[in-house]
Amino acid sequence: MNTASETYAGDERLAELLARARTGKSVADVGSVVAGVLAAPEGFEPEGWMALVADRPGDELRRQLAALKGRMAAVAEDGLEAGPPAPAWRLKALRRELAARGLDGFVVPRADEHQGESVAARSDRLKWLTGFGGSAGVALALADKAAIFVDGRYTLQVEDQVRTADWERRHLIDEPPSDWIAANLCAGRLGYDPWLHTAPDLEKLAAAVGKAGGALAACEANPVDAVWSNRPAAPLSPMRIHPLEHAGRASDEKIAEIAAALAEAGRDAAVLSDPASIAWLLNIRGGDIPDTPVSLGFALVEAPGTVTLFTDRRKATPEVRRWLPDCVAVQPREAMAGAIDAVAARGAKIVVDAQSGPVWFASRIEAAGGEAVVAADPCALPRACKNAAEIAGARAAHVRDGAALAAFLAWLDRAARPNGAIEVDELSARDKLAEYRREAEGYRGGSFETISGFGPNGAVVHYRASERTNRRFEPGSLYLVDSGGQYPDGTTDVTRTVAIGEPDDDQKRHFTAVLKGHIALAAARFPENTSGAQLDALARAPLWAQGADFDHGTGHGVGSHLGVHEGPQRISKTGAQPLKPGMIVSNEPGYYRAGAWGVRIENLVAVEEDRSGTERPMLRFSTLTKAPIDRRLVDAGALTEAEERWLDAYHADVRETLTPLVDAETASWLAEATRPIGEGA
Amino acid sequence: MNTASETYAGDERLAELLARARTGKSVADVGSVVAGVLAAPEGFEPEGWMALVADRPGDELRRQLAALKGRMAAVAEDGLEAGPPAPAWRLKALRRELAARGLDGFVVPRADEHQGESVAARSDRLKWLTGFGGSAGVALALADKAAIFVDGRYTLQVEDQVRTADWERRHLIDEPPSDWIAANLCAGRLGYDPWLHTAPDLEKLAAAVGKAGGALAACEANPVDAVWSNRPAAPLSPMRIHPLEHAGRASDEKIAEIAAALAEAGRDAAVLSDPASIAWLLNIRGGDIPDTPVSLGFALVEAPGTVTLFTDRRKATPEVRRWLPDCVAVQPREAMAGAIDAVAARGAKIVVDAQSGPVWFASRIEAAGGEAVVAADPCALPRACKNAAEIAGARAAHVRDGAALAAFLAWLDRAARPNGAIEVDELSARDKLAEYRREAEGYRGGSFETISGFGPNGAVVHYRASERTNRRFEPGSLYLVDSGGQYPDGTTDVTRTVAIGEPDDDQKRHFTAVLKGHIALAAARFPENTSGAQLDALARAPLWAQGADFDHGTGHGVGSHLGVHEGPQRISKTGAQPLKPGMIVSNEPGYYRAGAWGVRIENLVAVEEDRSGTERPMLRFSTLTKAPIDRRLVDAGALTEAEERWLDAYHADVRETLTPLVDAETASWLAEATRPIGEGA
Repeated sequence: MNTASETYAGDERLAELLARARTGKSVADVGSVVAGVLAAPEGFEPEGWMALVADRPGDELRRQLAALKGRMAAVAEDGLEAGPPAPAWRLKALRRELAARGLDGFVVPRADEHQGESVAARSDRLKWLTGFGGSAGVALALADKAAIFVDGRYTLQVEDQVRTADWERRHLIDEPPSDWIAANLCAGRLGYDPWLHTAPDLEKLAAAVGKAGGALAACEANPVDAVWSNRPAAPLSPMRIHPLEHAGRASDEKIAEIAAALAEAGRDAAVLSDPASIAWLLNIRGGDIPDTPVSLGFALVEAPGTVTLFTDRRKATPEVRRWLPDCVAVQPREAMAGAIDAVAARGAKIVVDAQSGPVWFASRIEAAGGEAVVAADPCALPRACKNAAEIAGARAAHVRDGAALAAFLAWLDRAARPNGAIEVDELSARDKLAEYRREAEGYRGGSFETISGFGPNGAVVHYRASERTNRRFEPGSLYLVDSGGQYPDGTTDVTRTVAIGEPDDDQKRHFTAVLKGHIALAAARFPENTSGAQLDALARAPLWAQGADFDHGTGHGVGSHLGVHEGPQRISKTGAQPLKPGMIVSNEPGYYRAGAWGVRIENLVAVEEDRSGTERPMLRFSTLTKAPIDRRLVDAGALTEAEERWLDAYHADVRETLTPLVDAETASWLAEATRPIGEGA
Repeated sequence: MNTASETYAGDERLAELLARARTGKSVADVGSVVAGVLAAPEGFEPEGWMALVADRPGDELRRQLAALKGRMAAVAEDGLEAGPPAPAWRLKALRRELAARGLDGFVVPRADEHQGESVAARSDRLKWLTGFGGSAGVALALADKAAIFVDGRYTLQVEDQVRTADWERRHLIDEPPSDWIAANLCAGRLGYDPWLHTAPDLEKLAAAVGKAGGALAACEANPVDAVWSNRPAAPLSPMRIHPLEHAGRASDEKIAEIAAALAEAGRDAAVLSDPASIAWLLNIRGGDIPDTPVSLGFALVEAPGTVTLFTDRRKATPEVRRWLPDCVAVQPREAMAGAIDAVAARGAKIVVDAQSGPVWFASRIEAAGGEAVVAADPCALPRACKNAAEIAGARAAHVRDGAALAAFLAWLDRAARPNGAIEVDELSARDKLAEYRREAEGYRGGSFETISGFGPNGAVVHYRASERTNRRFEPGSLYLVDSGGQYPDGTTDVTRTVAIGEPDDDQKRHFTAVLKGHIALAAARFPENTSGAQLDALARAPLWAQGADFDHGTGHGVGSHLGVHEGPQRISKTGAQPLKPGMIVSNEPGYYRAGAWGVRIENLVAVEEDRSGTERPMLRFSTLTKAPIDRRLVDAGALTEAEERWLDAYHADVRETLTPLVDAETASWLAEATRPIGEGA
């Protein structure tokens, strides 16, 4: 039902409707809810947020709530829509604030309190201060100098988005902040927000500041926030139940297991700072940030088997309260410091996650007489090892996602034909794919921002198409599309590279090398306890043989209707975590010809036990993703027999699985696209 | 000339001969030299040691020196020949000594002051105390309990060699000393010899002792030595010049480079504790320990470009003194503590090698006011990257070594034929191979103790044949021989697996999988900065595909007429060092069927730049070893075309290179053994 066009009938009428629906809420309460809702992503169910107001709002209340939201949205002005670049006054205001506090500088990381990739609008201090909109980076503001540090993905973007007169641009890896601090801070006091840095992160910062002869100063009240007058509210969206059918295990069972593991390790409690761990442990999901269906908050798990969730309690709707096990308490975020103090005061050993835990916790725990143990989040590994229900869900989600992708690829082949009737460009292709996905059962939105790159843009590993960069498809090059969806039963992430027009030999040679690497990994059998780092080269060796390589990891972990990037498993040089049954990782070797085109072939795979009676316990991958790999780009002569068998079997499986789900036009395209490779063009 | 049979004519006659030769040495001096010589390995030139007495001894003096040595050898009794197991009184005597010193326990590692694999007789305290003769392990003696810790290679051997009533046997990795200490030491004082532990090693020990509530106590006088009354002298053998022809770079150049690198890193000096680094830096070799031609000692490199070598100065013959650059001083070992103090007193930052540096240095440096920097030996990486002369030498040595190995393999095929005339067993095969190697130009002895294992013994990765374990060759199984030689121009290490009689399909299948892994690594191209850890899986994947694996690294570094095991490069799960041009590593995947047979195929390879015009700077391997791979064990149908091409090209190269160097019989065997694999049996 579309209720967006109704006019807001005024506070009095809303008050009446609220009273009549026995919501127990005032108009001011609802205003505060809407401010939080506006600070959260739109979400796939635009009226889902209304559960924050009433269990089952009547029609008129719904219309009035929608109208109020529309009105507030129209006047909202959080400062993030200005620029890029950000207005120059912001850095000046921050410097005045620092001077008033006796600080010589301040660190502004992209990270929020949870160190995630997506942050809420109110946490995007880096963008507000500088204009830079990338997903990673850090700024350093001193009294007379300022610098922003970004990695290789963002060197062009930072030039575009940041006022170069005010900010030096530096390479995050090659010219790290530590060197700049050592050279520029001198004996000054550098402020930092203890919520935005992990303990290992702060150690590096401290070493650099020490080298410069300066000192670090923790600022519990962030000075950027002090000058960001219209900073958005904290995002507010209702928690959702993640049903047992998809979760596979009850929350109280998981809590008992984690608590027992803590006790076994001689630890009294653990702080969960990764919202994905809280979501996994409590079998809940949320909508506070884009793409990853988590509800922001912190939790304290205690070894006797209790959990306290610290969050905005409005998010826990009555339905969710009933869903949570009895051992889970929901407390306001403001109660957390006191609760930590009380546990720490008993001399407790409390785990703080080395990856996502703010250093604030370690300081607070130690100050209160406890012992902070900076270690792995105790939920990270169990969460990564999906159970049978989660794997079954992932398989089912990938079938539906594959059908949508196949329909898109079939459409593209029709549309992008040299004499095709429709003009296709990166943005229209991206939108068309989203359209097909929205038709898939259970689709709840993308799992990340789609990469839709034609020609030279396909060679930009983290490319995002915009009106400014948008390219029209033309024959003779390649189109790379990397996208994924969130479904209640699983998270998908898939990349396909498509020939537009007739591919040349060079494109085919490199595509085939990438495919050989992809197959080598997909078909690998390996012993228990093998890490992703050990397997990484299998996917690269065919490219190495051609004197080429790619500058990203081969695979990342993927969650179960959670983050599309999930640790601790990964397949890369640094992937030290042994792979375990149930882990889902991507298999995505690529090749990028700068200025010309890019190739990437990405499927998700699940780790499973090999039960074929091997001499030693072995593991293998089972491919989840179902979508044709463009056979027009395969140089069949360069495949070994085993590689050809793999590809034909994969295509046969894709065809058999997807055909019943797609329309006749797509089915006929699918039949052609999945023919045995030996049959030629 | 054989002078061993002469009778010693008495001290008076010797004194006359010494005076006549103007040696400036007394009979007592010579007695002391011979004691040291007897404590060193025999060496390839049995009279080489006489250079320690006179520059060019006359015939009669030579005969008398040999006779004196024979006489002293006959009565020498160092306690190491007793057992195994070691007599029970030794542990009792040690405990009395510990009690007298107020200690509750003592750690006895296998390591000597240089943490090498081979130790001099006087340093083999572990063997003297327990009887255990393996190359790695550690014993812990407390007042009422004692335990010995060995790894998986030695679990059987330790049962054989150690008095089980006195010593608990524990697995070094699975049941580490730290756990045992924590459980058994209580609040006691555990003694250790600061010469026998590195700083990282001691940190682990300290953590375990701390956990137990005890304390560590450094014993500069080792209590084992106090009760080992007839402990051998320090080994004494003359240093040898390593000529520029083989070294490729003059010592003073190397010293200037290392000194400059120290200065650049803001360090004032470095202690060299690895004798191989000293040998490399000074272009000298020695004969103090078996298999690795080093001269034991320590050196101090100072940033202005000077080196002080602390050693028994008798080893530096006049010829060697003339060879050493002017910036090198040779001081007695006793002068070292004072010299370290003097440098440290200036507040110097002194590097101590994390791998081989005794913790004694760090303590001494800090006590004297300096700063000990526990880091990588500055010579380790430059030493590992062989220059053009060293690589050329390695190639030349491998050709001569390959000719000897081919002659042996040809002999073996004749001798071990079911109806062959000669009976072959592990010991006779080993001796025959040594005989062929002795005929190779420049051969100076083995680079390690040969592994000669037939059938089930071939499945024991670190097998050493003895009279007790010796097996006669019989048709239907495999013979595995892993051996190597020291030559002035290079060090070799090669393993071949040979079918005795007709191999079965199972043997062929596994041999072929090992060969596929070997070829995958040998033929790999890879980007600069790739580590050995990244490549390790390439050699394993074909075995993994069969559900199998092997429990050792794929490759270790090899020195240039130095250690057959050399860091920092290696190809294994833990080989983090990027491979660099000039590094030599082994390529030795294997497969071991316990109780039946073993397969290993080992060649040495050199890392070199790939100059074929690749898109990125790439590296590749060049195989050094020249010896046929048993084609009767290859299942040709299981090889890809590329693998078959590699094997045929390798065999063609082996045949062309070795044929001119071998006799007609071997040449005709070689022609058969290196035929293209497609030609069948």
